[in-house]
Amino acid sequence: MMDKEIFVDLLSQRQFRAVRSILDVMNEVDIASLLSDLEDKELALAFRLIPKDKAADVFANMNNSLQTYLVEMFTEKELRELLDDLYMDDTIDLLEELPANLVTRILDTVGQEKRNTINQLLNYPEDSAGSIMTTEYVGLRQGMTVGQAMAHIKKIGIHKETIYTCYVIEKRRLLGIVTAKDLMTSNDEVKIDDLMETEIISVGTHMDKEEVATTMRKYDLLAIPVVDEEGLMVGIVTFDDAMDVMVDEVTEDMTKMAAMNPSEESYFETSVFNHAKNRIPWLLFLMISATITGVIISRYEVAFASVPQLVAFIPMLMDTGGNCGSQSATLIIRGLALEEIHFSNIFKVIFKEFRVSILVGIVLSIVNGLRIFIMYHDALLAITIGLSLAATIMLAKLIGCILPLLASKVHLDPALMAAPLITTLVDTCSICIYFSIATKLLHLAV
Amino acid sequence: MMDKEIFVDLLSQRQFRAVRSILDVMNEVDIASLLSDLEDKELALAFRLIPKDKAADVFANMNNSLQTYLVEMFTEKELRELLDDLYMDDTIDLLEELPANLVTRILDTVGQEKRNTINQLLNYPEDSAGSIMTTEYVGLRQGMTVGQAMAHIKKIGIHKETIYTCYVIEKRRLLGIVTAKDLMTSNDEVKIDDLMETEIISVGTHMDKEEVATTMRKYDLLAIPVVDEEGLMVGIVTFDDAMDVMVDEVTEDMTKMAAMNPSEESYFETSVFNHAKNRIPWLLFLMISATITGVIISRYEVAFASVPQLVAFIPMLMDTGGNCGSQSATLIIRGLALEEIHFSNIFKVIFKEFRVSILVGIVLSIVNGLRIFIMYHDALLAITIGLSLAATIMLAKLIGCILPLLASKVHLDPALMAAPLITTLVDTCSICIYFSIATKLLHLAV
Repeated sequence: MMDKEIFVDLLSQRQFRAVRSILDVMNEVDIASLLSDLEDKELALAFRLIPKDKAADVFANMNNSLQTYLVEMFTEKELRELLDDLYMDDTIDLLEELPANLVTRILDTVGQEKRNTINQLLNYPEDSAGSIMTTEYVGLRQGMTVGQAMAHIKKIGIHKETIYTCYVIEKRRLLGIVTAKDLMTSNDEVKIDDLMETEIISVGTHMDKEEVATTMRKYDLLAIPVVDEEGLMVGIVTFDDAMDVMVDEVTEDMTKMAAMNPSEESYFETSVFNHAKNRIPWLLFLMISATITGVIISRYEVAFASVPQLVAFIPMLMDTGGNCGSQSATLIIRGLALEEIHFSNIFKVIFKEFRVSILVGIVLSIVNGLRIFIMYHDALLAITIGLSLAATIMLAKLIGCILPLLASKVHLDPALMAAPLITTLVDTCSICIYFSIATKLLHLAV
Repeated sequence: MMDKEIFVDLLSQRQFRAVRSILDVMNEVDIASLLSDLEDKELALAFRLIPKDKAADVFANMNNSLQTYLVEMFTEKELRELLDDLYMDDTIDLLEELPANLVTRILDTVGQEKRNTINQLLNYPEDSAGSIMTTEYVGLRQGMTVGQAMAHIKKIGIHKETIYTCYVIEKRRLLGIVTAKDLMTSNDEVKIDDLMETEIISVGTHMDKEEVATTMRKYDLLAIPVVDEEGLMVGIVTFDDAMDVMVDEVTEDMTKMAAMNPSEESYFETSVFNHAKNRIPWLLFLMISATITGVIISRYEVAFASVPQLVAFIPMLMDTGGNCGSQSATLIIRGLALEEIHFSNIFKVIFKEFRVSILVGIVLSIVNGLRIFIMYHDALLAITIGLSLAATIMLAKLIGCILPLLASKVHLDPALMAAPLITTLVDTCSICIYFSIATKLLHLAV
């Protein structure tokens, strides 16, 4: 990695040749991360020193605020050059984040044809296949030979995001797929009709991007064709975007499971106010829900007034119940996301969790019962806590596995709907179980 | 998708031509998933009907128990044919899961040269780059022209896992990288020395596979070269394996964050006993830890004996504290995994969480204080709970952000060490805060 200080020094001393030769050997991703630490003025200067063939790629790897600043700075000519080299999917990403006046400026700069494409792509719903696809792919015609296809790619390939999967198209209809590997390992006179794969895996423009990524991973695809409602090919999604989608979706799931609204930006990019805004709603809701547990406890005031020890076991029961529930919920939510578990498996899941909860319940109850007996020499208390614990564990595991499955059935997000609710639900149940067992076994008045 | 019932019917009626024509048009991944539902005997039969050019790929997509069964079934000749077509990384995956007698059988079947490679690959530590790499890549020589390189690829490419990234090698030392795109879009007489990228991004054989995947995603690489300690090239990791690593690591992180030992197998493949074994240790540990909170509560028996209402607020305080803590912990753990946050940012993180916790604390305390005042008409009680809640939230957010950062500093897994501990730690603290504030403000005896 280039030392940032040295780079900034060279830049401020206007040692342009040295700066340029450094940028010459550096990777685009690394240049983008080096430049992202610069002051605005230095940034524009440094960006202009990047070798032309790397500039668009560096730009695509920068964050939105830097991109916005650069677009503002660029001359008409610079902007046109950048837009010529920028892949269509990166152009769309950029336009989705820019302020309106800059979007207009960009639409004015590109030609009529590209403007039409852009406007069409911007119309696809957020998170759809259409919104992340690119329109730059290699199209081949039926009847071509391998030699002709290779010549075609040589002519147009350099401007296409990927040339490794080529699409045989007739009147915009996708007939087959030929990989660059097929072309490179076949003789020139072979017809692509004989090479092409006609069992095509494709996605619709409105398919959720997470599903697109899952499909690509399932079939190990470098690119997947996107077709519109009439079955006409409109673009492709490439593996690098699919990887990014997968990572973003996981972050979103984890965030939701921890009872937060997900943020579009990274931790540091999100403002304190937005962090608070993302976290408060669920906390408020869960706080209010937890008062239900409080109300239930109040009903047993007489019970724990006569046996104050009972109160001391509340945290242990609540925590263990919560932990058991979130263990099951996490496994099910992840299994649903990976499509290893489906709603139709609900009885299989319940039966499995039921058996697991018996094993877990027995071990934990015995350990805890023994501990209590040793500490308090009170067999009845030990049995009360042991039984309550076992019942809590079994209930927690059941709630933990059923709730995400139900959420998925009614097309709610299991990560959002199930995980945060489970603790509160389990708490309420465990307190009810605990005090009803305790009052019965210890013959307490309510 | 093929209807499974129809397929099984055709198979049991021995309609081999129909079965074969179905398998002919199906994708390898789909065939694998279709076959995985068959009985053992039907499976061997169906597998033998798969077109030869798809068989190895179908096999690679099957789960371990089916693979084991098939290897047992295969004749010497069938096994040799399969191993010839199976990529090296898939062969290693297979060998790592097979029982010893079948490993020996396979090593006896392959030739001496391949046996040496296999033995070497099996020696790399689990989860290292070496353990997931393949040795089948396209090597080119310096001085070759594009035309020569293309001719070389045409000859050997079909047996290589990827031909899209080619490696220019001299005495096993990696000099540069040429992409198939460079080759396909350049003229035949161009020297590859002029095309090749010499700023090489590579990984060491012992690098953790998660880091390998992160590097590949950062630079959008289709394949990354793996070099040994002497800098000699030994293999490559391809994007499909990197994607799988990413998904597995996320599942592992989520599992650990929910206080479980991760399982190598999917939910249904893991036995009830193993599920219980993975879940009990942390539950036991956390249950015992939670008794500390119980002990603290016991010390305040006199306090809540005189104001029994106090007990009713325990679940609300504990839950809110736990939720606040896991919100912060989740964001930090994910940020660490994505390399957006590093230990060196600890003060920036603490300052950010501190400000967020003030906002969150104020909103939640006011809402809850008002609720209590309205329900109980007791200003002092409202203030007591409000203050305790605010202090708990601030502490929870601090613990939630500091603990994962500390874990990463001492090279412990933040997901494993931080997330499950936080609830217990926050519980203990919140109970301490609550009762000290309550006894002071309400002038209670301890």
